[in-house]
Order: sequence, then C-alpha cells, then structure tokens
Amino acid sequence: MPSSFQSLILKLQDFWAAHGCLIAQPYYTQVGAGTMNPATFLRVLGPEPWNVAYVEPSVRPDDGRYGENPNRFQLHYQFQVILKPDPGNPQELYLDSLKAIGIDPRQHDIRFVEDNWEQPAISAWGLGWEVWTDGQEITQFTYFQQVGGATLDPVSVELTYGLERILIALNNAKAIWDEPWGAGVQYGEVRRQEEFEHSKYYFEIADVGRVRQMYDLYKAEAEACLANGLILPAHDYVLKCSHVFNTLDTRGAIGVTERQAFFGQMRELARRVALAYLEQRKELEYPLLKVAGSQVASLQVQPIPRLSNLQPANFVFEIGVEELPAGDLDSAIVQLRERAPALFDELRLVHGNICIHGTTRRLVVFTENIAPSQADLERAVKGPPADKAFDKDGRPTQAAQGFAKKNGVAPSALEVREENGGKYVFAVVKQKGRSTPEVLAKALPKLVESIKFEKSMRWNDSGVAFSRPIRWYVALFDDQVIPFAYAGVVSGNVTRGLRPYDSPEIKILSADQYFGVIREAGIVLDAEERKASIVEQVKQAASLVGGEVLLDNTLLAEVTNLVEKPTVVMGEFNPEFLQLPRDVLISVMKKQQRYFPVERQTSKVADSTSDVRPSTLLPYFIAIRNGDDLHVDLVRQGNEHVLNARFADADFFVREDLKHKLEDFRPRLGTLIFQKKLGSMLDKCNRMVKLAETIAPMLGLTDAERANVKRATYLSKADLVTKIVVEMTSLQGVIGREYALRSGESQAVADAIGEQYYPVPKTRVGLVVILADRLDSLVGLFAVGLVPTGAKDPFGLRRAAIGVVQPLIEHGVDFDLADAVQKSAKTQPIEVNNGVQKQILGFLTGRLSVVLKDMGYKYDVVDAVLAAQANNPVGAARAVKQLQAWVEREDWHEILPGFARCVRITRDQEKTFGVLEKAFVEKEERELFAAFQKAEATPRPEGSVDDFLNAFVPMIPSINAFFDKVLVMAEEKTLRENRLGLLQRISSLSDGVADLSKLEGF
Amino acid sequence: MPSSFQSLILKLQDFWAAHGCLIAQPYYTQVGAGTMNPATFLRVLGPEPWNVAYVEPSVRPDDGRYGENPNRFQLHYQFQVILKPDPGNPQELYLDSLKAIGIDPRQHDIRFVEDNWEQPAISAWGLGWEVWTDGQEITQFTYFQQVGGATLDPVSVELTYGLERILIALNNAKAIWDEPWGAGVQYGEVRRQEEFEHSKYYFEIADVGRVRQMYDLYKAEAEACLANGLILPAHDYVLKCSHVFNTLDTRGAIGVTERQAFFGQMRELARRVALAYLEQRKELEYPLLKVAGSQVASLQVQPIPRLSNLQPANFVFEIGVEELPAGDLDSAIVQLRERAPALFDELRLVHGNICIHGTTRRLVVFTENIAPSQADLERAVKGPPADKAFDKDGRPTQAAQGFAKKNGVAPSALEVREENGGKYVFAVVKQKGRSTPEVLAKALPKLVESIKFEKSMRWNDSGVAFSRPIRWYVALFDDQVIPFAYAGVVSGNVTRGLRPYDSPEIKILSADQYFGVIREAGIVLDAEERKASIVEQVKQAASLVGGEVLLDNTLLAEVTNLVEKPTVVMGEFNPEFLQLPRDVLISVMKKQQRYFPVERQTSKVADSTSDVRPSTLLPYFIAIRNGDDLHVDLVRQGNEHVLNARFADADFFVREDLKHKLEDFRPRLGTLIFQKKLGSMLDKCNRMVKLAETIAPMLGLTDAERANVKRATYLSKADLVTKIVVEMTSLQGVIGREYALRSGESQAVADAIGEQYYPVPKTRVGLVVILADRLDSLVGLFAVGLVPTGAKDPFGLRRAAIGVVQPLIEHGVDFDLADAVQKSAKTQPIEVNNGVQKQILGFLTGRLSVVLKDMGYKYDVVDAVLAAQANNPVGAARAVKQLQAWVEREDWHEILPGFARCVRITRDQEKTFGVLEKAFVEKEERELFAAFQKAEATPRPEGSVDDFLNAFVPMIPSINAFFDKVLVMAEEKTLRENRLGLLQRISSLSDGVADLSKLEGF
Repeated sequence: MPSSFQSLILKLQDFWAAHGCLIAQPYYTQVGAGTMNPATFLRVLGPEPWNVAYVEPSVRPDDGRYGENPNRFQLHYQFQVILKPDPGNPQELYLDSLKAIGIDPRQHDIRFVEDNWEQPAISAWGLGWEVWTDGQEITQFTYFQQVGGATLDPVSVELTYGLERILIALNNAKAIWDEPWGAGVQYGEVRRQEEFEHSKYYFEIADVGRVRQMYDLYKAEAEACLANGLILPAHDYVLKCSHVFNTLDTRGAIGVTERQAFFGQMRELARRVALAYLEQRKELEYPLLKVAGSQVASLQVQPIPRLSNLQPANFVFEIGVEELPAGDLDSAIVQLRERAPALFDELRLVHGNICIHGTTRRLVVFTENIAPSQADLERAVKGPPADKAFDKDGRPTQAAQGFAKKNGVAPSALEVREENGGKYVFAVVKQKGRSTPEVLAKALPKLVESIKFEKSMRWNDSGVAFSRPIRWYVALFDDQVIPFAYAGVVSGNVTRGLRPYDSPEIKILSADQYFGVIREAGIVLDAEERKASIVEQVKQAASLVGGEVLLDNTLLAEVTNLVEKPTVVMGEFNPEFLQLPRDVLISVMKKQQRYFPVERQTSKVADSTSDVRPSTLLPYFIAIRNGDDLHVDLVRQGNEHVLNARFADADFFVREDLKHKLEDFRPRLGTLIFQKKLGSMLDKCNRMVKLAETIAPMLGLTDAERANVKRATYLSKADLVTKIVVEMTSLQGVIGREYALRSGESQAVADAIGEQYYPVPKTRVGLVVILADRLDSLVGLFAVGLVPTGAKDPFGLRRAAIGVVQPLIEHGVDFDLADAVQKSAKTQPIEVNNGVQKQILGFLTGRLSVVLKDMGYKYDVVDAVLAAQANNPVGAARAVKQLQAWVEREDWHEILPGFARCVRITRDQEKTFGVLEKAFVEKEERELFAAFQKAEATPRPEGSVDDFLNAFVPMIPSINAFFDKVLVMAEEKTLRENRLGLLQRISSLSDGVADLSKLEGF
Repeated sequence: MPSSFQSLILKLQDFWAAHGCLIAQPYYTQVGAGTMNPATFLRVLGPEPWNVAYVEPSVRPDDGRYGENPNRFQLHYQFQVILKPDPGNPQELYLDSLKAIGIDPRQHDIRFVEDNWEQPAISAWGLGWEVWTDGQEITQFTYFQQVGGATLDPVSVELTYGLERILIALNNAKAIWDEPWGAGVQYGEVRRQEEFEHSKYYFEIADVGRVRQMYDLYKAEAEACLANGLILPAHDYVLKCSHVFNTLDTRGAIGVTERQAFFGQMRELARRVALAYLEQRKELEYPLLKVAGSQVASLQVQPIPRLSNLQPANFVFEIGVEELPAGDLDSAIVQLRERAPALFDELRLVHGNICIHGTTRRLVVFTENIAPSQADLERAVKGPPADKAFDKDGRPTQAAQGFAKKNGVAPSALEVREENGGKYVFAVVKQKGRSTPEVLAKALPKLVESIKFEKSMRWNDSGVAFSRPIRWYVALFDDQVIPFAYAGVVSGNVTRGLRPYDSPEIKILSADQYFGVIREAGIVLDAEERKASIVEQVKQAASLVGGEVLLDNTLLAEVTNLVEKPTVVMGEFNPEFLQLPRDVLISVMKKQQRYFPVERQTSKVADSTSDVRPSTLLPYFIAIRNGDDLHVDLVRQGNEHVLNARFADADFFVREDLKHKLEDFRPRLGTLIFQKKLGSMLDKCNRMVKLAETIAPMLGLTDAERANVKRATYLSKADLVTKIVVEMTSLQGVIGREYALRSGESQAVADAIGEQYYPVPKTRVGLVVILADRLDSLVGLFAVGLVPTGAKDPFGLRRAAIGVVQPLIEHGVDFDLADAVQKSAKTQPIEVNNGVQKQILGFLTGRLSVVLKDMGYKYDVVDAVLAAQANNPVGAARAVKQLQAWVEREDWHEILPGFARCVRITRDQEKTFGVLEKAFVEKEERELFAAFQKAEATPRPEGSVDDFLNAFVPMIPSINAFFDKVLVMAEEKTLRENRLGLLQRISSLSDGVADLSKLEGF
C-alpha cells in the first residue's frame, strides 16, 4: 500500500519528538521556507540550545506551474528540523528518520550532493548537501554558519525535507497528484485546484501597483516595530515584505537593478531583527542555556602505546568525513600528496612508499615501512674558545664544565674544532629519536589542520573549520592506534563502510589489513579505478541501446568523486522532450542531474559547444549510483521520474518564452543593470550595435554580412531575460540562437547570437558581435576604474581581453585595436581619455602575450615582437612565428650580434643624427652605408620579421668590418655624429617589427 | 509527569487520523480561528464528504494580554476537526479523543454548555456547545448550519479544541506558562516574549493609517481575484482583510458605525467566495462525492409487536438527545405537558396518570395504565333518503345495498333516522380500536415532530430540525418496544447513563422499571428534585465558610437544567480580586461561569441591582458538577484556576480603563452609532442633557439636584465604551457608577448613572436621567418610523415606555408627558410632527394601561380613566385607584345608571346645546338644574374621581325624578334642546376624569 502524505508527517513528527525535538507549528504568514519561521531564523542565533521540528507550507510564487508539473508547485510542504548544537551524528539521525518513513537505503540511491546554501535576503549562509534519493532532491542538509549577518556559535544543523518529493520517491510515483494524502483523499484532490488558481494569481492577476504599496506599508511597519523594540512583529513584516517581493518578481515587475535595492532593504531589516534578538536574549540571560559545558572538552584520549615490535611497519591514516564536495576532495588529495612526504621527512621517520587516496567520505595516507622511531640526531654545539676551555694543564675550566653540563655531555667529551680561523670547544649532542607513535600523535592533528579549502565550515565547539565535518580517524601504526584528538574527534581503529550498507563500523586490526578491509567493504578507494569503472560501465550501457555516451570529462571527474562504489543505472525519458533544444536537454542532464546523455552511435560527435542537432540525442540517460545493483529498477524509475519532471519544467519555461518573439524580450533588458555608470544591458546592447557598425568595415565584411551583424548585435542579449535562461544561466546564447531561429531570424544571425559566448566564433559575423561585446566591456569598465587587480577580476576582463585577441588571431584578420578602442570610447556614456585608452591597450597586449606564449613561442621572442607591434594581434602573431624561426636558426648567433652592435652603441644617444655620405672618411663606412641603402630599399611589408632580417643579413659583413676598422666615437664631433647617425638608421630597420634587444643573447 | 503541549497535538492527530480524518496543516495567513482555513470554510460547502483535522494557530489581537493572563493570549492554538457528514456519534468520538489525550471523564467535570455560534463576518451560524472541563471552556462543538450565507447540506460537525486550556486542565495548572511544550522547554519559554511584543504591537504601535491602507489593498485584490474566478486567492485576501480589521479594532480605531460597514464588506466578500466555490465544485462534478447513499434511508425498523398481555400497562417514551440548552429543555417540557395528554385522548387510548420529565439529555413521557388498544369507534354515516332506500316492500333498493356495502354493514343493519326534518338511512359503522403499539408507532414520531424550539438545527440527512440532535428513543409499552424511526433514529429499549460514567447503554426491560433504572444510573430525572438538591447543597457549602449563598433564581433554574446529577463543588479565589467592583465579580461568576457567589452571613442582602458594597462578598464560589464527588478536588482546583484567570482578565480591563477618568471616555461615544438618522450615542447623550435641563423643573428639582442631573446625564453613557463594558455589556451603568466614584464624581451623580438601567430609579436625579434617556429614544425612534410592530421591537421601545410611566407612578410625581414629548421633539435632529407626538403618547398610554392592569386594577376601570386622562401617569393611577374603589361599592349599581342615563340620551347629539333656566317647564327640570349647579360648584381637583363622584351622587334622586317625569325629546325644539343641554352639562362633569361609558354595566 502506498504511503500517505499525512503518515509521512506524523511519522517524522514522532521520530523527531522521540529524538528530543520540540514539535512546533507552521508559521502564520506566507514564507518561502521553514528557515524563515522564527523557530529557525531567530532561535539559531546566540548560544542557547534548540532542537525543533515542524512542517512548513512554503510559498514560492515563481515555482507555480498551474498544477501541471509533477513535482514543482507554488506551495510545497517542508518538514524542517533544527539541531543546535550539532549532535555529532546528524547524518545518521537523518538516515534513521528516512527509515522511519519507509525509505530503505538498500532500495534506493541516497546521495549527499554538495550544496553551498546562501540566502542573501537574510544575510545567511551555510554548507551542506542536497540529499538525493534516486536523483530526486528530497532534503536540504545544512550546517548554518551565519544568519541575519550574525556568525552562529554554536552552529545549527538544518534539515529541510521536501515532503512531496519524498512521497513521490517512496511510492515510486511519477507525480504527486494521484498519491494519497490520507483518509482516502488524494494529494491532487486537496491541492491541485489551488495550484492552478494561485499560479494564475501570481503570474497574471496580482496588481503590481497595489502589491508594491503593500511592500512599502510592510517595510514601514517593520521599521516602526524595530524602533519600538518589537522583534517578532518586525520579523513578521519582513516576511510579508519578502512574500510580496516574490509576488512582484513572479509578475515580472522587478528589474534586476531594483532587485538589488529590494534585497538590500530586506537584508538590512533582517540584520536588525537578528541583532535586536541577540541583544534581547543576552538581556534575558539566555533562559534556555540550562546545561553549560563543552562537547569537545570532555573527550578522552588514550595514552601513547609502547611498541612491542620494533621492526619497521606500515601506517594508515584515514580521515573520516561527511561527504566532501568533489572539488574539495581533489584539492585535499593534492595537498596531502605534497604535504605527507614532506611531513615524514621533517619528522625524521624513515619510510617506504607513501600513497594518498580519497573518496567523498575518507582521505587516506598510507605509508609503508615506517621505522619504529625517529632517526637519532647528532648536533655540534659551539662553546667557549678553546683557550678559555682548558687550563694550562689541559683540564677543563669552569666555563667548559658549565658548558658541558648544560649540553648534557661529559667535559671529557668536549671536542676542539676550528671555525672561522678560531678554535672553539664543541659539545656533540646526541638526540635520541622518539618513538613513531609519539611523533605521529603530535603530527597528525597538524596534518589535518594543514588541509585548507576554498570554503570551509565549523560544526562543533572545537571551532575547527573543514570542508565538511570530520567524524572519525583511523590512525594505525602496525596494530597500534596513534592516539590523538582533533576537531572534537578521537582517533581509533574503526572505519565505516558504504552509506547504502548503513555505514557499518568496521574494525581495522592493523594497517596492513587496511586496503583489504576497505575493498571487502565494497569501497573503491582509488579514484582512477573508480573512473575507469564508470567509463567502462557507461559505455557498455550506452551500447545496449545502440548509443554512445557523451563523456564529458568534467562531469566524469565529478561523478567519480561522488561515489565510493559506482554502479551504472540507465533510464529513459519521454521522447517528446527531444523537441526541446538539445542544449537544454544536455544542460539539465549534466548540470542538474549529473547524468551522462546518450547519442546515436552513428553520429560523429562534434565540438560540443556548437553542435545543435537535437536529432542526435537518444531518449536515455545514464546515472551512477553509489552502491551495488540491488533494487536497481527502483532507482532507475525514481531517476526517470525526476528527469521527466525536470524536462517538464524546462518545457514550461520554453513554452512560456515562445509566446514571444526574441525581439520582444529586448525592452526588459532595460531592467537588467550592466554597471551603474554604464547603464542597463539594453544600453550596452545599443552601444554594441553602434560599435559593431563602425568596426565591421575594419574587418572587411560584405554588405550582407554587415546587415547580419547589425541584427545579431541588436538581438544578442535578449535571451538573458527569457525564463529558461533566468533558470539556467549557462544556456545564454544557446537559447538566443534557438529562439532566434524559432522567431524567424536568419541562420547567420542566429549562429552569431549563439557564437557570442564561444571562445572563438565560427563566423565573421559572430566575430564582430564578440568584438563589440568584449571591447565595450573593457573600455567601459576600465573607464569607470574597474581594472582587474591581483586575483580580483569580478567582471572577467582578463577573459574578455583574451576573447578579443584570440579570435582575431584564429580568424587571421588584421585589426587595429587602438582604433577600435577609440571607436568604442566614443560610444561610452562617460569620458575615456587617452591615458585610459593606453591602459586598455596595454592590458590587451598583456593578454596577447599570454596567448602567444601559450601557443608555444619563447617568451623573449614574444616580448621582442610585442614591444614593437601589439595593436594588431594577427600581425604580432605572424611576426612572433617568423622571429621564432630565425632565433632557431643555427647562424642566429652570428646574426643577432651584428644587429646588437649597432643598437648597443647608439641606444643611449638622446638625439637622432643625420647621415651625410660625403662626411664618411673610411672605406668601411662607405661600404656599410651602401649596404644599408640596399637593405633599406628592399620591400619590407609592415611588421614582417622575415623581410626585415632578410634585408639585414647581407649587411652583416659590412657591419663587422665597420666595427673592426672604424672608431665610432671619434673625437671630432661631425665625424662621430655621422657615424652614429648611420648606426641609428640601421637600428631603426627593426622599428615596428621587433625590439631585438629583448631577445636572449642580445 | 505532566503532559506536554506537543504530545497533546501528536495524540490528537493520531486519534483523528485513525478515525478517518485527513490531517491538514495550519493556514499560511493570520486567521482568528481554524474555521477560516479553507479546509473548513470552503470544504463544508456543498454535498461532498470531508473529514479533516489540523492545528490552527489562531490570532486574535484583542485577546492580547502582554503575556500576563494565564489563559488568554493574542495567539492560541486550536485543534480543528470537521466531520462531514455527521457520523452519528460525534460527542462520543470527541469524548474518546479526550481520553486519548488523558482527560478521564471520571476525574473531571465535563459539560456541554449551550452555544449559539455565529460569525456575522462570514455570514455563518451553527448550534452546539462550549465543552467545559472543570469550568474551563476547552472546546467548541458546533453543528454548522450555514457558512458564507449558504445553507449547509449535509451539516458539518466542527470540533475546535483550545489546546492551551486543555493542557492547563490536564496538568491541573494555574497558567500555561510553566507547562511543558516538549523537549524540556516550557510553553512560556517558547511564546511569552512574543505575547508581550505582539500585544504591544496591536494595542500601541500598529499604525492606523497604514493598516487601513492594507485593508483597502486587500479588499481590492480580493475583488480582482473574484472577478477572475480565483477563489482561493480571493479567500486569502478576505482573511487578510479580517486580520487587519481586527488589528484596527484592537488599536481602538474602529467606531461602531464603521464596524458595521467593515462587516458588511467582509460578509459580502465571504459570501461571493462561498458562492463561487459552490459553483466550481458543481462544475467539477463533486469529485469527492465518491460514495452516494443516504444515512437515513438504510434504517431498519422492526415490525409492530403483537401483545400477549392484553391488560392495561405502563408506557414510557424517552427521547435521548445531545445536551439541550436549559431554555429549550423548559420549553420542551411545557409543550409535552400540554401535548401528551391531548395526544392520548385523540388516539382514544384510555390511560392513567401522565407525567413528563426532562433533563438536558432526555425528555420523558411516562403514562400509566394505557389500554392495550384504542377504544372502539361507532359512527353513523348518512345514506340516501329513506324513501329511496326501500322499495314498497320494505326491501332495500340497489342504492341502499350499495351504500351498505360501501360502509361494510349488512343492508339489514341500515337504520332510518330523521335529520333536518327529512328521513334518511344511516349505516352505523363500527371501527375496531387498533392495538396500542400500532397507534403509538404512528403517533410518536408526530409527537417528537410537534416539539418546536426558538432555534433549531439539522444534523443528518433526515432533514429533521430539533434543538440538538436526537440520538436514541426508548419507547416501551409494557415490555414491548414501539417500533418507529424518526430523524434518522430507530426506537428501542436502550437508554444511556450519565456522561461522567461514559454514558453506558442501559437496557430497560419494561416501562415499569424505567424510573428505577434511571435512578439507579444516578440520574435525577425530576427537575424539582434536582433543584432542591442544589439549594440544599449550596446552602450547606456556603455555611461551611460562614457565608450565605447568593441564590439567584434564574441561575438556579439554569444550573438545574445543565446537570443530571448535581454535586456541589466549592472553591476559593484570590482575595485580592475582591478589590474589583462587586458587580464585576458577580457577573463573572454567574454569567460567565454559572457559579453561585458567596456573601458574608451577617450582611443583609439588599436589592441586588443596587447593592454595591464589595466588602460583603467572600472569596468563594460554588459550582455544580454533573456527577458524583469522585476526584472532586481536581474539579475544584480546575474551577479555581479558571475563575482566577477570568478575574485576572476583568482586572486587566478595569486597570486599563482606570487609566482614564470616566469623562475621558465620552468622545469615543461619537463612534458608537445610536441610529443612522439620529446620530451617535454622543449625540443622543447631548440631547439627553438638553432634555433633562428642561424637564427637571417639571419635576420640581432643587438647584443642587438640577446640577447633579446635568452632570449625571452628561456622563451617563460614557461607560459604554469602557473595555470592561465592551466585554460584559450587562455591567453598563454599574461600571458607570463605579468609575464615576473612582473619577471623583459625587455620590449623587454616580448613583444616578447607575440607576439609569434600573426599572425604577431610587433618586429623583436618577429619575430625570431615566426620563431623558427613554423619552429621547421613544421620540427619536418613532420619528424615524421604527415603531414596534407585532413581536418586533428591536429597540426595546415597549420596555422604554414602561420605563417612563412606572418610575413616575412609583415616585408619585405629576408629569405631563405631552409636554415632555414636545420638548424632546424639539431636540431631535429630524422633525417630529404632531401626528407622531400623538402616536407616541398613545403608545405610552398603552403601556400605562398594561402597568395599571398589572397592578391589579380592573381593565374597564383602567380603560375608563385612561380614556379621559393618560398624559400624567401618576394622576391616572390615582384616578384608577379611586374609581376601582367606587366600582367596588355596594351602591355602585345605583350610581352608575344615574350618570349613564344622562350620557346615553345625549351622546349621539352632534351639537352642544345651551341651557336657559327660564326655558325649563317642569319642576323636575328645575330641581335637576339646581342640583347640577350645586355639584358644579363643588371644588373638584383635576382628574379626581372621588371629587367628581362625591359631587355627582347627591344629584341622583333629581336625575331619577327628571327622567320619570320629563320627556326629554319633546317635540318642541327649544324645550328639547334645553333639556338635552342640561343633560350634556351633567355628562361633562366626568370630563378629564373618566369615561364611565367604558365601565361594565354602563
């Protein structure tokens, strides 16, 4: 019999009540999530303990789907749990609660998928996971770090169950509507009509003017309440503000600019509420703080063991963690691979091979054959001068005796050594190596501490921050536990098995057995092995349906890091969804679900960024389950239902969007701010149209192409305000292209819109759109002072600059950046003076330099060319290529010095001198001048290294003769200046080609 | 261990889920009660079944007490259950649910106290009870009859548990604050601070202007939603309207006039929502109407039994009902006492004594010795004329044979009888009496049906209306069940015992045993016996504390009707509350709690309406429990906690009120409408001040008194807007007096304010206030046409008129009503023409007549006097008294005819004739004229019957002689008119005294 919605709630309430939670009730005003209920929002603040559970009907207007989507609604029921402080085993408690409602981890695929929770409207964040069951997100599991701008101490664990989705998973249903609520009534019979009506209200009927007025009134009341110290009434009005804001947003009435203002106001109010609450609880002397005492302070650590076996032995160190994000796992392994060997060396522990492994739940350092103790240390300590150390009879003086005693040696053992020409006594101090357990007990906490993450979190009152909570250590040297405590956890010899097997505790008897035990537990410890297994399985699965898997390496790496035992699950989806844009399908599968898409085997997979043939996808997907293949059918069905719901949702967006032409979206760009001083995205787009018009001729486009450029640029940003792109930003451009085609635009225009986000566009029309876009950003943002500094580049200007030069190089088109920058400057709403323009060009040169070096050219060659020519990237690239060839010539060591002699002697001259043929005195002078005139007369296309050097090389004998015979720096002024003038003329042959002085060997 | 708040909720959810209820969740917007949740408000509409249970945090701003009151808060948690249709045993289900949460009916006093639930804001009403536990209202139990203006079919049963109060009762606690919520946290720790803050917000901070704007915006959105067919969104906004309205009200921003407008708007919106919902469900074809079928249609009734014993036997008929209201019980008994004997006679059932009894749960008709069958009936049916019935041979004709056959007699049995002078054949038809069971089986349903109530309700699909649901019948003739079904209930021989004993089913073997069985079950069937037992018990209890019970008869009668087995429970209350005005204390005890107050034994109890000595009350109260004295201590403590909480609440009101002087309340009277055209209560009060000023001299008041009149009238209505009077209207005047004293007004002014609601004031100052008040109402309301008609007298004008004349009579003050009405007319804001003034005076006369008759005077005497003099009630009363004495004189039969002869002969004359002494012809004429002149010269104070008749009596001999000798109607005109003139003069002696022609014997 299927579970009912109400039984789910009743069981969860019973479970959490039995586990010490206060059972509270939903809040009496519309909230977007249980987090907003003061039972969470306020109670997580401050030091008082608080364990609570409650249902929360969560209203999110923009999730309204008129009752059409199987699992997305404007109202869904959350079950919210707060555990404050962290009980130490919240994941296990949570999994037990799932069992209590009938979700058996052996029948499903339950996963903890990295989630950085952030709620800017209330200035809150935390780290944790989305918990997935068979691909369905059923719970958000978060360690709250900050709320209302206040840092939380202690940290609260928040569990937010999505009850509808749980019921769907539990009943293996496609949608919520026909599932039982209770008393013989179905969920849809209770709620479907209201979904339709509220969706219609929020999307179509709500009166924007009136709802705005409500917001203002609520805000004013909230402020009045705060002014009078009324925290809860103020909070109520903040919530009301938030709900009407969401209503306005759903109604499409909020521009992006305005959104920031709204958020700012709400954040500020939330912050004041939180602050006032903290203050109030303090004044009340924290009435709920009944039992004081630290969790961590009471930990018991065993004494260091004495070793019986004094032979070298293996050592294993496993850090057991709650599921690490894929990226953090990679990072931790890299750090350990660097850190562990160094550590053993520092510790003077002789050892064999070290290997480092990791899965999402464990980081492992395994070291073979570590000596039972440190190597002994011998160290000479310098004492008094020898003549003061011994008396005339050669007996140690008082000074020597004192020195010997201090260093723990017999006076007779003092040695005399010479140092810096003097003689001194030395004590040779021997330090006995300490036992390996003793050394490691001190070192291991520091090793853990040394692992750093981009984003880390606290969880208990140890105050330690890590990627996710540490829950156990296995630290075994041979068969002895290395005893220590860190981050509130005591080391031991017990690991835990696979999640789907209920994470059984497994005792490791000695380090030698570690790998065997882990393998026996079903865990594939080695990432490469996991990856290979996934690749093999997905390929095989795809071939079963005559398909080929789209094996994205980033996704593969991520999935490898998400499971400890990969098992493939292949499912189907409704083929009707193949009508959706291919990239939408792929994006949903890969980004939202971490699935591998499947393509027709016969098709050649092209560059994934540009392939737009929907017909090549097959209605299948491949998921990787964590665990074995028990009840894999259930898992498959669950994943299928989820994917179909996702596609239905995308379909909803696309259908809504397609009620309009692409062009119709443009006006709303006016509400999307690009940059305060530079205006909206609409302003930017209009500038791009102007700029594109003026740079198109520079690229030699045909009239037809120029018309397409104009249209494509005009439409280029419109897709940013479509529903589907708002939902999935990564589809920008892809959707623009797709909608352009569906709006009847030409293929060329559509392609150009799509290409604007490519590193390098395929078409010349796309190239102009790209240049217009990126130059506009560079010029405008530099002009307002937003120049990238150090690691900071919030607007991605470095990427934009590369995106300017790289396409030009690859398209092989000459282009004058200085001219283009000046043209863009003219379109900006603020002044862009010459200094700024130079700065921009310098910045572009810098990026060009990086690009050229990345192409494999020597840095000095690149530098030499760019010093002379940088504003035309294609030219510069050509020159670099030529110069590199010259530099690699065998006779280069003869060519360069010749030129260098001319340059070196003249480069300090401040003046440029004329050359009079009649003023030459020596034969060698005249011959050199003749050779120069010949070279100068040789046709040399601008910037060409080959032509310059080919012209120069014949001069070399004359140059050498000149310097052998002629004194350049003659005393007679006319003579001297005439000779310098000649050499200056020769040097200037490289002008606009390269500054050869930058080359090695110059 | 005490119960926790959350365990209460969890257990109720489990209980109702197990009993087929859908478990829903609280609503997401502030509501005043669970009724407003669409899971009730909408789902009770239409034919679909619906069983649901949910918690509802109910927000009632004006119940906010800053967290100071033990059981009254701006937010409390309701547990709401809807059973649709009525399951047939909702009370038993409900009591089982109480057991499930630990309330054992044997340990407490659980009572079903009449409640007419009405919610004008949503056009809804129903009948049911407040369920009390130990004096605490813990649940509202209602059979919904109408919601949103729509009549409900089927009726829904609504149970609304007050969870806080249940927990208080369950834990025998004084207040909610220290009771456990769950997880080691107390209720107060969760909610007390928020009570303070929200109370402060609602009472002090909420910005009236802004909240008004919210109302307008919500209303506009609700209308927009309705216009677009969005029912649930519209409902949401109606709820929001309601909440902000409550906020404004609590803030004191709503005048009474305005209140009506707001209610009208909200009611209209609610009605439209309900209507639209009904329409929608119909269009959807009632999806939840899965199982059709009538509850009632499937009832099984046994066949009529054949009697074996053909002797007369006793008969008992018990109608088992859910708790009847006290008034309805009285009314039913009166009806049965009239109806039952008549019925048996109509049925031709020979019977012995009939006795009728009733308790709140049963109505009983017991009839001794009914014959086993009806008396036979003999009836003569008239046939054809005798001459057409028999042929010449005396044999019956065809016509006669046909007639005989039709009537079931032999032709030979036809009889010839005379009728109206003709001869006809008659068939003497004998109808055999049917058996008593057969007759009763048909009659009993009609007997039940014949019982009518002022307010009745439907509950099941029989459609029958009764005071409360009928749940069983015992109908036994001897030992035979009289089988029938009515109102969905089948008769039988099983009654039910006492509620506190769990209403056990008790089989009655024969009617003879009925009284014994009932007595054995502990039920006191006879009301007089119950009453006597109560009186004895309360007196005894009071004497234990040296006190005397305040034995109010109305209360006694009510309490007698509330219990089946009365047991006294005496409790104490906090003596500090004795500081509260005595009438407040009494009012709370009697009206709110149905307790008997206790006074010091030494004090003489004076007229209860005027006694204001708080010091005479003792801090005790006496409650009457339904049941025995098991665990009576728990019951006592519970009642004590409730009473203390009630007093704390009254104390809150009084303290709030006393922050102001009485005079300060006057301006708010401007918001309290008296009548649309007549303005506010403030306007009325101001008119009263004017009127009092002009009528005071008519009553001969001293200057000092007149000053007091002015002040008292000025302040007279101010208490109507105090918090305590708004809460307990019956305290109007009492509070005015009390607050006047506390505001420093003189005793005389204070007393006059208090006396204004007395039928008769004690002081002359009070008399003027009363006259000003009541005359103003009469004159004003008649002028706008609100004249009482038939049973309709919504403004209580009949009482007002009595309240004018009675005090004047009792104070013995002459007063010209016509003058006073004219003076009042001048102060009215609209015209009061002469016709209306006459109408008013006529109305007053009518009431005066009633008063005088009630004083024991003969109707004809009263009529005679009032026909001549009515505008001065005291004078009229005097005259009536005198006339009555005359009428009772032995020689009255000689006096009246003398006067009558004069009147009768002249009353048809249209002209009044002159009298010329010289025109008299006969001696008797002259002598009568002389006697008349003597009588006329006798001093006769206006209106005095004695003086008139004393003057008249001596004339009688002359009158008699005159009529004996003189022909009045002489042919000669002068002669005739002169004689008529004399008699007219004599007749007119009674002018302004009495119209003797109205007297019997005239």
